[in-house]
Amino acid sequence: MYFDTVNITLHVRPGDLDINGHVNNARVLEYFEAGRWSWLSKHGLSKQKSSISVVSSIRVVYLREINYQELLCRTQLHLPESVEVGTWEDELTYKAEIRQILLDKKEESTLATADVSIVFIDRNSRELRSLQEFIHSQKAT
Amino acid sequence: MYFDTVNITLHVRPGDLDINGHVNNARVLEYFEAGRWSWLSKHGLSKQKSSISVVSSIRVVYLREINYQELLCRTQLHLPESVEVGTWEDELTYKAEIRQILLDKKEESTLATADVSIVFIDRNSRELRSLQEFIHSQKAT
Amino acid sequence: MYFDTVNITLHVRPGDLDINGHVNNARVLEYFEAGRWSWLSKHGLSKQKSSISVVSSIRVVYLREINYQELLCRTQLHLPESVEVGTWEDELTYKAEIRQILLDKKEESTLATADVSIVFIDRNSRELRSLQEFIHSQKAT
Amino acid sequence: MYFDTVNITLHVRPGDLDINGHVNNARVLEYFEAGRWSWLSKHGLSKQKSSISVVSSIRVVYLREINYQELLCRTQLHLPESVEVGTWEDELTYKAEIRQILLDKKEESTLATADVSIVFIDRNSRELRSLQEFIHSQKAT
Repeated sequence: MYFDTVNITLHVRPGDLDINGHVNNARVLEYFEAGRWSWLSKHGLSKQKSSISVVSSIRVVYLREINYQELLCRTQLHLPESVEVGTWEDELTYKAEIRQILLDKKEESTLATADVSIVFIDRNSRELRSLQEFIHSQKAT
Repeated sequence: MYFDTVNITLHVRPGDLDINGHVNNARVLEYFEAGRWSWLSKHGLSKQKSSISVVSSIRVVYLREINYQELLCRTQLHLPESVEVGTWEDELTYKAEIRQILLDKKEESTLATADVSIVFIDRNSRELRSLQEFIHSQKAT
Repeated sequence: MYFDTVNITLHVRPGDLDINGHVNNARVLEYFEAGRWSWLSKHGLSKQKSSISVVSSIRVVYLREINYQELLCRTQLHLPESVEVGTWEDELTYKAEIRQILLDKKEESTLATADVSIVFIDRNSRELRSLQEFIHSQKAT
Repeated sequence: MYFDTVNITLHVRPGDLDINGHVNNARVLEYFEAGRWSWLSKHGLSKQKSSISVVSSIRVVYLREINYQELLCRTQLHLPESVEVGTWEDELTYKAEIRQILLDKKEESTLATADVSIVFIDRNSRELRSLQEFIHSQKAT
């Protein structure tokens, strides 16, 4: 089981800008959300299966004002250590941590970062599922 | 069969404002959409049934710049004449016209207007349905 | 004086999708707005000068449901005939019509169209300006 | 110097909802932003003066799925202890912490919380200002 870092290019839209001509802080979360969807899609994890991933918390740090420009969003999964060292089968994981970075595409300087906690739930019953169950449900036809 | 004019109060959000401090023209469509949902809800027409309403075209006229303020959205159905004069049962209607007005809540001056064409489709097959079928589907349990 | 058709690529964001998994009708206006900014920018017309362009009306026709996909937005100016035939100096123009088309990038099928009327105003006095005065103000340093 | 907790009522808009019919996580930040603007306005602090407040980080915890409903947003300033105990004049404060809670208006159950860090900068030079300078600049005519 291996998860890649996924990079996507994003464009600021005029409607993302606030009174000061910089991107509104709520809109920055839309960029990170697009990054997570690409990450899921690149790993064959769809939004339409029986188990779904739901954001339980986000910490965003706004480092620089974001202008009308081209952006790069980098998304990476931080698995709990027990999973990374290969005890995958032994211990169920009920939460995943995703680390995201938003960069100026030209200068590659960091504009904002997000640490996102994800939980997995059953689409219908809304009950908690483990990461293992989530990945398994994705592979079912 | 009688349809009322429905008024709702709306609040501009900071994120609705553009560089010039006025409401972005795309966001104005969100106000009108909220008005149409209230209209549907007040008439017992839900978004969750087998037939759904879909916007096929909108003409918006922006009359005055909209500031950070309280708004009033007025929504009214324009039925085709044949339906209004009571031939409801005889002739199926495949399109409805909705007239909406956005007002400054305090001064009651008109800020924008929208003429919205709606069609009705089956949620699953995406096939066209008549207004009569749409209303009938809403009343089914 | 010659104005080109300008094409830009756009990406649907997850936050653009509604309950049915299609792009919300208000969000479609954000795509067209991005197209107009690119058009202005390609023709050296900035948003930061003394005269600015303001949208006075939009007619959008939604032809097909828009999924989570890559889009193409095509923007073209429709000048009044008097201007096109070269009487540019003689007759002042107080309104411009812009025609925009939103396409599926892969299939090149049309998803939506917009006819946008633009007026020109002085940034400070908010008084009406002609297209000629607008273009002149843009070239001033 | 005393700062009140400020409550505002907010309405979910149809365009705030995602594929699952719940409010999109980026849109929740728009609610909190509206809460902060009300807080500033109730304390006579405007967005248009020489010193402005800028969000440097936000931690949002999403506790429950938010439906199409009426909401209450509660906003409160957490001053550093030194300021609270009255050493206001002695020690300059360069950061403020704001605690916000989003509630279901009917049930008063908590739906989400936000901890927001604010810094103060000069509108033109973009240099850091203290909270004391920010408040002083607001009172200048």
